Amino acid sequence: MTQRFKLTIEYDGTPFVGWQHQDNGRGVQDAIADAIRGFCGEDVTVAGAGRTDTGVHALGQVAHVDIARETDADTVRDALNYHLKPEPVAVLKVEEVSADFDARFSAIKRHYLYRIINRRAPLTVDRHRAWQVPVPLDAGLMDEAAQVLVGKHDFTTFRASQCQAASPVKTLDALDVCRESEAIVITARARSFLHNQIRSFAGTLKSVGEGKMSVRDVRLALEARDRSKCGPVAPPDGLYLMQVDYE
Amino acid sequence: MTQRFKLTIEYDGTPFVGWQHQDNGRGVQDAIADAIRGFCGEDVTVAGAGRTDTGVHALGQVAHVDIARETDADTVRDALNYHLKPEPVAVLKVEEVSADFDARFSAIKRHYLYRIINRRAPLTVDRHRAWQVPVPLDAGLMDEAAQVLVGKHDFTTFRASQCQAASPVKTLDALDVCRESEAIVITARARSFLHNQIRSFAGTLKSVGEGKMSVRDVRLALEARDRSKCGPVAPPDGLYLMQVDYE
Repeated sequence: MTQRFKLTIEYDGTPFVGWQHQDNGRGVQDAIADAIRGFCGEDVTVAGAGRTDTGVHALGQVAHVDIARETDADTVRDALNYHLKPEPVAVLKVEEVSADFDARFSAIKRHYLYRIINRRAPLTVDRHRAWQVPVPLDAGLMDEAAQVLVGKHDFTTFRASQCQAASPVKTLDALDVCRESEAIVITARARSFLHNQIRSFAGTLKSVGEGKMSVRDVRLALEARDRSKCGPVAPPDGLYLMQVDYE
Repeated sequence: MTQRFKLTIEYDGTPFVGWQHQDNGRGVQDAIADAIRGFCGEDVTVAGAGRTDTGVHALGQVAHVDIARETDADTVRDALNYHLKPEPVAVLKVEEVSADFDARFSAIKRHYLYRIINRRAPLTVDRHRAWQVPVPLDAGLMDEAAQVLVGKHDFTTFRASQCQAASPVKTLDALDVCRESEAIVITARARSFLHNQIRSFAGTLKSVGEGKMSVRDVRLALEARDRSKCGPVAPPDGLYLMQVDYE
């Protein structure tokens, strides 16, 4: 008899090959599985809500695990944080959930944030935490272009070629761009996203911000359903999985 | 004939022994002096407004340098940023100033920020960028205690034993504490500070926040002019030199 736990997880994605284990490197998933082995000796599958890529961060990833040892949520949280050291992964919260809770399939909304630092000088304290763009960006125009993408669309243009989703049709609930002094923050919300979708949005909106694409170009790119019409994909450094919502 | 330039500098203090060169390691000052040598072959003294300690960051340190080569402010900025790579130091702004401008002695106000992350889980993306305090802190009480310290006082209690200032009497213009969800931000403003003064304040206010010291205890500690009455000094990770003001 096992107990299912929901974990809310924060990590710095820089040293990992992404959320998921890869043959060529360590995933955040591996770090958590090792910590669970350290805690209770059990080999478990750590099922995440979203597969973040190499270098992508999370402030609110969600995963579920099944543990056979009799324990409670707070003990799991503290033990995992103890065994995770010194890796840049922290378990923020643990909750007991029923056996039909699935971090991936029960999720009804995912929230991401993409952070640009719009300045000429290189990054220091924000290195690997944002995308430094030296050319001046018009955040107002970027936000106008973002609204073209909101709604139910075939997002083939904004989807990595290796994307495994069954369909390129998704409903984007919100995509907002706002400037906070030298930072430009893009927030995105949808039930689910395609592979590289937000980094494709961020790269395209950056092209709008610097005047290389117009709002109309973004509409045409979306309607073209053609990957080659996407702006350059933004680097992973600025992307954060912020929150996953459940019923 | 040399030209004096004022540099506004940002850095991640983690890999440095502090602003100043030390016999046992590299200071931020050394990184900038090396970049100037790379740019124009000149050996200059990089005079900073404040000597930040090992691990302390700056978003707005100011320094001045004298350069003999004929050049202009924007060229100096871009050349230094080029030669500073890959060190986590960036020159945000360069301005030509008159020969009587002195980054340290002309400064009329210094602004610092100390950042606490008040939560049980270890830090990930904020590692080396804040002080993680797991016990719940009352930011309202901390702010109340902070007001006791504002004004002109003998700050012997909040001064490192190795402090080289001629007098322990300083005028603290402002010390404010506010909570922003799990972060507690302490801002400090004065013409100048004693060595370790803000980290001594932060450590003492943390003791107030967790109920180990009262507001009255802080008043008594200040009045005692006794280093042993200070709370534990806070780690450098959370401290940022934000801004230096000039006439």
